[in-house]
Amino acid sequence: MEFTARQIATFLHGEVVGNQEVIINSVSKIEEGIPGTLTFLANPKYNSYLYETKASVVLINKSLVLEKEVEPTLIRVENAYDALAKLMEIYVQSIPVKTGIEMPSFINSSATVDSDTYVGAFAYLDEGVKIGKNVQIYPHCFVGKNVEIEDNTVLFSGVKVYPECKIGKNCILHSGVVIGSDGFGFAPEKDGTYKKLHQIGNVIIHNDVEIGANTTIDCATMGSTIIRSGVKIDNLVQIAHNVDVGENTVMAAFVGVSGSSKIGKNCIFGGQAGVAGHLKIGNNVTLGGKTGASNDIEDNKILMGEWGMDASKFRRVYAVFRNLPDLYKDLYQLRREVKNLKAE
Amino acid sequence: MEFTARQIATFLHGEVVGNQEVIINSVSKIEEGIPGTLTFLANPKYNSYLYETKASVVLINKSLVLEKEVEPTLIRVENAYDALAKLMEIYVQSIPVKTGIEMPSFINSSATVDSDTYVGAFAYLDEGVKIGKNVQIYPHCFVGKNVEIEDNTVLFSGVKVYPECKIGKNCILHSGVVIGSDGFGFAPEKDGTYKKLHQIGNVIIHNDVEIGANTTIDCATMGSTIIRSGVKIDNLVQIAHNVDVGENTVMAAFVGVSGSSKIGKNCIFGGQAGVAGHLKIGNNVTLGGKTGASNDIEDNKILMGEWGMDASKFRRVYAVFRNLPDLYKDLYQLRREVKNLKAE
Amino acid sequence: MEFTARQIATFLHGEVVGNQEVIINSVSKIEEGIPGTLTFLANPKYNSYLYETKASVVLINKSLVLEKEVEPTLIRVENAYDALAKLMEIYVQSIPVKTGIEMPSFINSSATVDSDTYVGAFAYLDEGVKIGKNVQIYPHCFVGKNVEIEDNTVLFSGVKVYPECKIGKNCILHSGVVIGSDGFGFAPEKDGTYKKLHQIGNVIIHNDVEIGANTTIDCATMGSTIIRSGVKIDNLVQIAHNVDVGENTVMAAFVGVSGSSKIGKNCIFGGQAGVAGHLKIGNNVTLGGKTGASNDIEDNKILMGEWGMDASKFRRVYAVFRNLPDLYKDLYQLRREVKNLKAE
Repeated sequence: MEFTARQIATFLHGEVVGNQEVIINSVSKIEEGIPGTLTFLANPKYNSYLYETKASVVLINKSLVLEKEVEPTLIRVENAYDALAKLMEIYVQSIPVKTGIEMPSFINSSATVDSDTYVGAFAYLDEGVKIGKNVQIYPHCFVGKNVEIEDNTVLFSGVKVYPECKIGKNCILHSGVVIGSDGFGFAPEKDGTYKKLHQIGNVIIHNDVEIGANTTIDCATMGSTIIRSGVKIDNLVQIAHNVDVGENTVMAAFVGVSGSSKIGKNCIFGGQAGVAGHLKIGNNVTLGGKTGASNDIEDNKILMGEWGMDASKFRRVYAVFRNLPDLYKDLYQLRREVKNLKAE
Repeated sequence: MEFTARQIATFLHGEVVGNQEVIINSVSKIEEGIPGTLTFLANPKYNSYLYETKASVVLINKSLVLEKEVEPTLIRVENAYDALAKLMEIYVQSIPVKTGIEMPSFINSSATVDSDTYVGAFAYLDEGVKIGKNVQIYPHCFVGKNVEIEDNTVLFSGVKVYPECKIGKNCILHSGVVIGSDGFGFAPEKDGTYKKLHQIGNVIIHNDVEIGANTTIDCATMGSTIIRSGVKIDNLVQIAHNVDVGENTVMAAFVGVSGSSKIGKNCIFGGQAGVAGHLKIGNNVTLGGKTGASNDIEDNKILMGEWGMDASKFRRVYAVFRNLPDLYKDLYQLRREVKNLKAE
Repeated sequence: MEFTARQIATFLHGEVVGNQEVIINSVSKIEEGIPGTLTFLANPKYNSYLYETKASVVLINKSLVLEKEVEPTLIRVENAYDALAKLMEIYVQSIPVKTGIEMPSFINSSATVDSDTYVGAFAYLDEGVKIGKNVQIYPHCFVGKNVEIEDNTVLFSGVKVYPECKIGKNCILHSGVVIGSDGFGFAPEKDGTYKKLHQIGNVIIHNDVEIGANTTIDCATMGSTIIRSGVKIDNLVQIAHNVDVGENTVMAAFVGVSGSSKIGKNCIFGGQAGVAGHLKIGNNVTLGGKTGASNDIEDNKILMGEWGMDASKFRRVYAVFRNLPDLYKDLYQLRREVKNLKAE
């Protein structure tokens, strides 16, 4: 698709400075600066690139004061970042969505699939599956018995959903996601072996949830593992059996939540953070990267460190920790001084 | 399926208190308490729920003394938890198992598949593959050349098994598991590039092993990576080339074991623990969550912390660590005092 | 395949000691010592096995001085390890490579596939895909719209490549790898929900890159996530949007690199290491296992510890850390002494 600077400015209610008829057919980062593309400048840190970029059109904030002349056409808007996000959304929506059923796919005769839905080749829909409107099920997805998937949800290639799980509206599950695998439950026997505790629960995913590639969410032992509306989960995250994740909570890559823990709303968990089992984590809790949580956490707390310390305390502890060799030297210097004093 | 309280009590050799004919068709957790379901009470922490639950039937320990009247029908058994596990096993066994070969699947003419086995649509069985009795191979599994899978083993959708690997009896491999991918072996060249060391070994998995979703187990450089009987591995675990995991060892999510390490029997590794390469870890070793092991470990040790310290020592170290700011203050207070003493 | 010791010695320009006509048909580790196999001895730590092994042929260094008589045939070469690597390469190259298009597979009519290429059953090649010479695409791979894959690259079973990504020559992508999934980008809204930032970039993988099983590499928000030539990535690694990984950098399992960080050439990242977002990591940087990097790092640095400390400093800090209980005791002993001095 091609657009002129004028067309884009009109769409964004922006003001063009320079050649209105210059044509762009893609976007690029300002430091890449590819001719024929549109870019943007929102972060003042990158201002200098404006005078070097070879991009054809740059979105800038109305408020930006130019230091010298620039080569590309400018489009001045209220907020360059928001304007770009709007353009990207339009761009993505302009990509034609697949519909219909590609062959060969496997759809059990008792499965119901809405007519606007895409079912890719080699997708597998088992007995009793119910698929809503405008759902996209890419190739190699497995949708187990009695699974329900509501409107506008997308399962990218290779998503696996075990039987009886439920997925809400407007969700996005990336490639390799596994939903509903058995919880890790074993009872130790006297001879040192383990007996499997059969896992008969499911996973329920509410609306507007996005789940990153190769993330795994286990089914409940009984009842449901629950991912509530608006939750955003990155790649390679592990959510164990019977966990309940509150609305709009965000988890970065390699976060692990152990069995039966209940996570509040609007939490943010940094990469490689871990939560032990059977805990209650409040609302608006932040765990820094690599943080371990092994106790219940109250609302609004920020924790850091392998042992989940309050962040402000952790920073004080760490300031001493990183200077331990000096502290050690000071202590033993002092010891000598005391020894001398005693000898006097 | 529906059962009366009486039918369940008979099956469990339990005693009914209340309406014997109440019908249940599912199970729930006692705190959820859904009418028409059976629940259980084993942990005294949850006793209060017994008087509030709306579940229709509750399994309780014979020894439990009621504090007041309860609404649901009770079934008194020797051990409520064991009775439940027994019911769950019966329930799972009641789910009909798929058999036969679904089309389209790809089975090389030289592969041998026992007649009771299930091969799902889009499964791929390469040359020389041997599949035992009652094996279930779900859709999208890849079973490479000469792989052998013994009786009663289940490969859920999307398991990938590289050529020449062997999987024993009664194993469960969850979706996305990769068995036999190349070990990570590269020889540095003088120009800074790396030369691949070809990996010609395989993976051997003994009996009664369960492997969680998206876990990866690399083949040996030469010889075999071995997972011994009764090992239970959670989701998203990494086992490198030539590792040997002893019987009944348990590993939680995100555990990583580096190349050629030998792990003993009956070990327990917590989530996000890591083991360096070429180590010998004894029997009955416990690694806490996030623990790093970078040295050999003797039998029966419990280690904690990023640097794999003996747990009792780690607790003492950590008790001081978390109070470092106070220690710092005390030290510099003391310094002032000594300075004053010296000045006297 | 079977070879005599004489044939192998001729190929390796080595010298046979013992029975030249002994036949081997496989390789084994010297401590396993299986009759009918060839093994090698390169590490002096394993010298004693030479006198016990039941292997039929052993590759040894020319320089090795025997302590007593040995049973197997020996082949003396300049460097036993290199000779073995050469044999393993020959062995791997002797395994017949699949070619042609297996059915049923799905190849869009606008996709171009070179005639020497293997496309396995149940593979999916979308619109505009371009596949070079001698490429192997195993069953269950998904190759999205307009993806280009250059000569000699291998995608093992179940690799997923999102639209518009590019993969160079001589690459190996192991099972379950996901290339080009959406970057993790969300803008917080006033009501606590998050708005998805659409991700319209791609992933570009240069030549000679190997990527381990179930590793995920996200597409760029705009522009490209770049993996440069010679990079070697282990299993279960996460590379976020807009990351740029320099030539010949090596990453072990569970490494996570956050969005927009730029990693230099010839770096080595240990297992479970993490790099925060928007950082610049120099060339030849080493991160120990479990190390966290939260600041830019200069060339040639070696970092250790959860908080990414210079390794030599970390070792000094840790030496004090592990003796904190003693330091604590010494401090409070000293306090008592000072108290006594003051009382005098």
